[in-house]
Amino acid sequence: MISDLATEIFIPVCAVIGIIFSLVQWFLVSKVKVSTDRHVNNGGSAKNGFNDYLIEEEEGVNDQNVVAKCAEIQNAISEGATSFLFTEYQYVGVFMCAFAVLIFVFLGSVEGFSTESQPCTYSPLKKCKPALATALFSTVSFLLGAITSVVSGFLGMKIATYANARTTLEARKGVGKAFIIAFRSGAVMGFLLAANGLLVLYIAINLLKLYYGDDWEGLFEAITGYGLGGSSMALFGRVGGGIYTKAADVGADLVGKVERNIPEDDPRNPAVIADNVGDNVGDIAGMGSDLFGSYAEASCAALVVASISSFGINHEFTAMCYPLLISSMGIIVCLVTTLFATDFFEIKAVKEIEPALKKQLIISTVLMTVGIAIITWIALPSSFTIFNFGTQKVVHNWQLFLCVCVGLWAGLIIGFVTEYYTSNAYSPVQDVADSCRTGAATNVIFGLALGYKSVIIPIFAIAVSIFVSFSFAAMYGVAVAALGMLSTIATGLAIDAYGPISDNAGGIAEMAGMSHRIRERTDALDAAGNTTAAIGKGFAIGSAALVSLALFGAFVSRAAISTVDVLTPKVFIGLIVGAMLPYWFSAMTMKSVGSAALKMVEEVRRQFNTIPGLMEGTAKPDYATCVKISTDASIKEMIPPGALVMLTPLIVGIFFGVETLSGVLAGSLVSGVQIAISASNTGGAWDNAKKYIEAGASEHARSLGPKGSEPHKAAVIGDTIGDPLKDTSGPSLNILIKLMAVESLVFAPFFATHGGLLFKLF
Amino acid sequence: MISDLATEIFIPVCAVIGIIFSLVQWFLVSKVKVSTDRHVNNGGSAKNGFNDYLIEEEEGVNDQNVVAKCAEIQNAISEGATSFLFTEYQYVGVFMCAFAVLIFVFLGSVEGFSTESQPCTYSPLKKCKPALATALFSTVSFLLGAITSVVSGFLGMKIATYANARTTLEARKGVGKAFIIAFRSGAVMGFLLAANGLLVLYIAINLLKLYYGDDWEGLFEAITGYGLGGSSMALFGRVGGGIYTKAADVGADLVGKVERNIPEDDPRNPAVIADNVGDNVGDIAGMGSDLFGSYAEASCAALVVASISSFGINHEFTAMCYPLLISSMGIIVCLVTTLFATDFFEIKAVKEIEPALKKQLIISTVLMTVGIAIITWIALPSSFTIFNFGTQKVVHNWQLFLCVCVGLWAGLIIGFVTEYYTSNAYSPVQDVADSCRTGAATNVIFGLALGYKSVIIPIFAIAVSIFVSFSFAAMYGVAVAALGMLSTIATGLAIDAYGPISDNAGGIAEMAGMSHRIRERTDALDAAGNTTAAIGKGFAIGSAALVSLALFGAFVSRAAISTVDVLTPKVFIGLIVGAMLPYWFSAMTMKSVGSAALKMVEEVRRQFNTIPGLMEGTAKPDYATCVKISTDASIKEMIPPGALVMLTPLIVGIFFGVETLSGVLAGSLVSGVQIAISASNTGGAWDNAKKYIEAGASEHARSLGPKGSEPHKAAVIGDTIGDPLKDTSGPSLNILIKLMAVESLVFAPFFATHGGLLFKLF
Repeated sequence: MISDLATEIFIPVCAVIGIIFSLVQWFLVSKVKVSTDRHVNNGGSAKNGFNDYLIEEEEGVNDQNVVAKCAEIQNAISEGATSFLFTEYQYVGVFMCAFAVLIFVFLGSVEGFSTESQPCTYSPLKKCKPALATALFSTVSFLLGAITSVVSGFLGMKIATYANARTTLEARKGVGKAFIIAFRSGAVMGFLLAANGLLVLYIAINLLKLYYGDDWEGLFEAITGYGLGGSSMALFGRVGGGIYTKAADVGADLVGKVERNIPEDDPRNPAVIADNVGDNVGDIAGMGSDLFGSYAEASCAALVVASISSFGINHEFTAMCYPLLISSMGIIVCLVTTLFATDFFEIKAVKEIEPALKKQLIISTVLMTVGIAIITWIALPSSFTIFNFGTQKVVHNWQLFLCVCVGLWAGLIIGFVTEYYTSNAYSPVQDVADSCRTGAATNVIFGLALGYKSVIIPIFAIAVSIFVSFSFAAMYGVAVAALGMLSTIATGLAIDAYGPISDNAGGIAEMAGMSHRIRERTDALDAAGNTTAAIGKGFAIGSAALVSLALFGAFVSRAAISTVDVLTPKVFIGLIVGAMLPYWFSAMTMKSVGSAALKMVEEVRRQFNTIPGLMEGTAKPDYATCVKISTDASIKEMIPPGALVMLTPLIVGIFFGVETLSGVLAGSLVSGVQIAISASNTGGAWDNAKKYIEAGASEHARSLGPKGSEPHKAAVIGDTIGDPLKDTSGPSLNILIKLMAVESLVFAPFFATHGGLLFKLF
Repeated sequence: MISDLATEIFIPVCAVIGIIFSLVQWFLVSKVKVSTDRHVNNGGSAKNGFNDYLIEEEEGVNDQNVVAKCAEIQNAISEGATSFLFTEYQYVGVFMCAFAVLIFVFLGSVEGFSTESQPCTYSPLKKCKPALATALFSTVSFLLGAITSVVSGFLGMKIATYANARTTLEARKGVGKAFIIAFRSGAVMGFLLAANGLLVLYIAINLLKLYYGDDWEGLFEAITGYGLGGSSMALFGRVGGGIYTKAADVGADLVGKVERNIPEDDPRNPAVIADNVGDNVGDIAGMGSDLFGSYAEASCAALVVASISSFGINHEFTAMCYPLLISSMGIIVCLVTTLFATDFFEIKAVKEIEPALKKQLIISTVLMTVGIAIITWIALPSSFTIFNFGTQKVVHNWQLFLCVCVGLWAGLIIGFVTEYYTSNAYSPVQDVADSCRTGAATNVIFGLALGYKSVIIPIFAIAVSIFVSFSFAAMYGVAVAALGMLSTIATGLAIDAYGPISDNAGGIAEMAGMSHRIRERTDALDAAGNTTAAIGKGFAIGSAALVSLALFGAFVSRAAISTVDVLTPKVFIGLIVGAMLPYWFSAMTMKSVGSAALKMVEEVRRQFNTIPGLMEGTAKPDYATCVKISTDASIKEMIPPGALVMLTPLIVGIFFGVETLSGVLAGSLVSGVQIAISASNTGGAWDNAKKYIEAGASEHARSLGPKGSEPHKAAVIGDTIGDPLKDTSGPSLNILIKLMAVESLVFAPFFATHGGLLFKLF
């Protein structure tokens, strides 16, 4: 086993390497210039620092104007996204402060705000820090988690809006160049986020240790606030961003594509800027916050369970840091993996994009398996003891290795299944496209069926991971399995963020009036991006399921319940109501998108009808009003679903007590994960069925097209329906299940002491 | 308390009264004549035995031809339905016999086919009948349940196809007359089914008592086979019928309404007969079998739990028969309720239809509350003891009264909420209709959101019923709560069956070329019918949830498990996989409908393209081929989903054991009930949004219409998508959850003895 000092060095060093690597990637992306002055100076000799052949030269289009236009559009998108995020963060900030006060008051009241030290729960002879200290530091961790989440999302958005126009410009040189820029930008986000999350958590632990000293139980209880903060922020990011992006997208498509027959992302469409802003605030910033939340919660769940294991009690620092060591190794592994996409091989044709992305998943998983073996071997004793709901359980290090691996490989399986169901290279999406022959209705029926079907294998994969990890190491096993799935988060985020960046790049190409051949290239990048986005969502959901089970287990331990028996009325009603919550939540978010889209449609129609020359391209639309509609709608509409998720554990815990709350958590977990998977895959499949028809790459696809044909119109309807499913309600659901679990965990001592009022009264 | 003799008389007398009442209703329906000879003889003086004013006279249409045409169409529908049901029953019959053998072998093997008496489980000093006898009688009860289910479905179909043309003819005299005929026919089905189910069960108990004597535990274990038989049959009825009807409906609509712009049910459409046959085999026969199954299972669950209570052990026959007494009282109450619709008041205008049907729900619930009070007072001792998973629990009679009532009133609440969300008189459906302005995509988004939202209150109602009944009287309470909800089944079925009958009546009016004013009347009846169908489905789902929980509880008792702890890996993986099963099942059924509909579309297109004169109405389409396509598709496609439901409990029980199976049952219950409710309400809402636009009864509705406008086309797409949701996958799901529970209950002794092979091996 390595020494404590080596651990103390290894973790921050890995994090710093990750940050440096992401800065290098950023630098490489920045070498593509979008400023026109520079370009004019260089002349034709060394365009953008490269000597490649540009598609425009062949077609004789004026290059300079295009670059200027790209820069202008990029600025508009970037400003729109920044201004929305600032508005969003202002509102959420107020809420976060209020919630921080709530945490402090509730947790402080557990021991009546006493400043006296208390006997420790697991070794009553020793004195532990007072509940008031845990309340205070939980509140601080909560705010720290929220701020880190904000930073993660914001940085992701910044790099994405920095990279989108650059990807468009590189697409002039070839699909391979464009791919590398988009992928590098994704990597910036992935590595920044993974390294940042790890570093902040590591520093926080070390700082808290100064106060807590030997009381590791209290320390890691306080640290769970970090996960809660991360996920609370992520909830609003996902829901607010999701409503923003889809209101704009649906609104723009309904009038532009369906009524006015103008292409997607046409600059004449007033909602087009809002649509492109949306990709960055919803799919990038929201997703960044989401996966950061998963990562923070999985680490916290593992740490809090470990703190009452034998290495928590014997104060074996290296073993205790096992979860952080896994994440550190993950950064190194992902770094090597990224080189395979950007440096070791080169993409030359459109059909190589999807295999390249798939290879990323495989390589990172294989390398990580070795990495986990090394970490397990050097950081863990050959056997140790954990507490399993009151009983003790001896775990061997090879068992824990298997726990992490099963999570990691389950993630890969989920990724592959998602790819199979959402990529237009396989029969499921092609069948959906084919069903467009008979109109939108059959398209929707087949799409929904596809989504439902795509749930089967991921659920079995999750079930097997849970069974293996649970049997070997109880809740600690489940927590490290979740960490295993998230250990390649940097690569996962890179290929996930790549999607919206390509989508934006296509939008910019269209708006800047570039050649349709460039649009074809960005469309090919985007089609692969739809699949990777679905894969990313699959990862997010799978890991959310494991994380929330681990948090649920930690909650049950901390609330001192010994069994969660379905056959007691208190638990059963929790279970059935919990299983209903994802439906309630989805109803709210879908309705919000629908209503906001209707408002957007009215505004876009109004502009087309009242601005003379808009359709002819002689007048400019009023982009700002559409941006404002999306902003206002998302800020207003994110409150009810947010309140539902944040308040449910509080209300259930306070009035019905911890047993019913356990039922609610289990119910929302097992029900939510299904809807989340099916919603994102259905949406991804519809989107790619449409792209399949548009691309016309096969005999079959051409028989359905071209753009504007009846089957294509049916496919557009499916795509529009899928938008809120895949980008608003689906991905928000994994936050719902995680957040309710981590919130219950943080408030567990309060509920256990003061909760269940209703049953106490009657 | 009343004597055993009085009980022995009261139950069969009520059943016989129910049967007589339904025959009287049938006689009243039969007074409307569809034969032309009779009509010719009567001349104009006393048309159809009535002297009412006919709409045709006003318009000067030749009445005689219309009647002849109605008779012809009715015959075609009736023959098609009969021939399909016979084909279906043949295939299912083979399966049932094979499954019967399986039951016998599995249950017989529990004690190694020994013919020796065994010590009783609950009083080991006494001798009970051998497991082989229970195996034999379970098998017999299973077949009896299957046959009763077949008879219920078949009779329902017969009366429905008998009544449809009569409703059309009565619509000439006024909407009130037509309503009464449709409602009376529904009542025939409702009362026949309720009375028949009760009578067969009662006779079976009395016959088995001859063999079992004092061994009531064995007796009521054997009787559970009755519920399994009823529900297995119902599964195939619902799935097969559901695929049949929706393949035809979707196929007919896609070509007829969307491509050829001809009205719904136009006789030129080759799939129109198949569509109308489908209403009778799916919505009528399938639903009849389904509700009979619920009723049989709820009774069996209550009886098997009661058999190990104090009145089972003390052999108090009247108290033991409490569940049957409730059902008997239900028949009487429903009889009185029916008179309110048919005799005490008269419907004069379209807008009175929905209130009249709603009044049926309220009146039956209020009267039944009194009925339950009486039965509880005369049939139960003031307190008694039941077994609650190993512990004893004293229950007072007023507590049991509350258990039944809470189920009954929860049913009413579910009914009202369903009505609110699916009737076009309220804002939810009007909002969905309004969203058609912006096309099919927003219509689908709003419709899905509506379905999700409509889950909230029913789930709270179910949760409260479960909490109250579970807390008062454990699983016995839940079982009688389910019976309470089903006690007004005769009225529920009457208003439910009324829907498809009106739908058919409208189809016949169109096909017979009757005046559009008659079509308007039948459409109004049908719109109310869509709502009542949704209410019926709400009842079916709500009761299924309670029933399957009760069966689940009985299973757990019988399998000798003391807790079902979510926090054990075996149970948790069952829970998450169980929650996935409804998705798998829905994927299969929706895909089946989609594929069958595509085949139908091709055939209909082929006929339009190859039969000269078809569009002009000079040539007749080939209805038979379309009927064959629906028949073949449904027979072939019902096997995989049927196998999924029937095999899952066997596979899980044998390989993973009873703990995992408990998880699967709980998971599928809490997840399935949500999808089932949302699917039926979404579908119902889309159907009525379309009808709202078509009827144009308000300023708002007219602004969306008329037929053929863009919003109307969008509404038609929504309606088509809703078809498989509301009539195939949604309603089949409640059978899924019930059937897996009752199957587990029947096989519980086998699983407990020989199950869990996989865990035994490793």
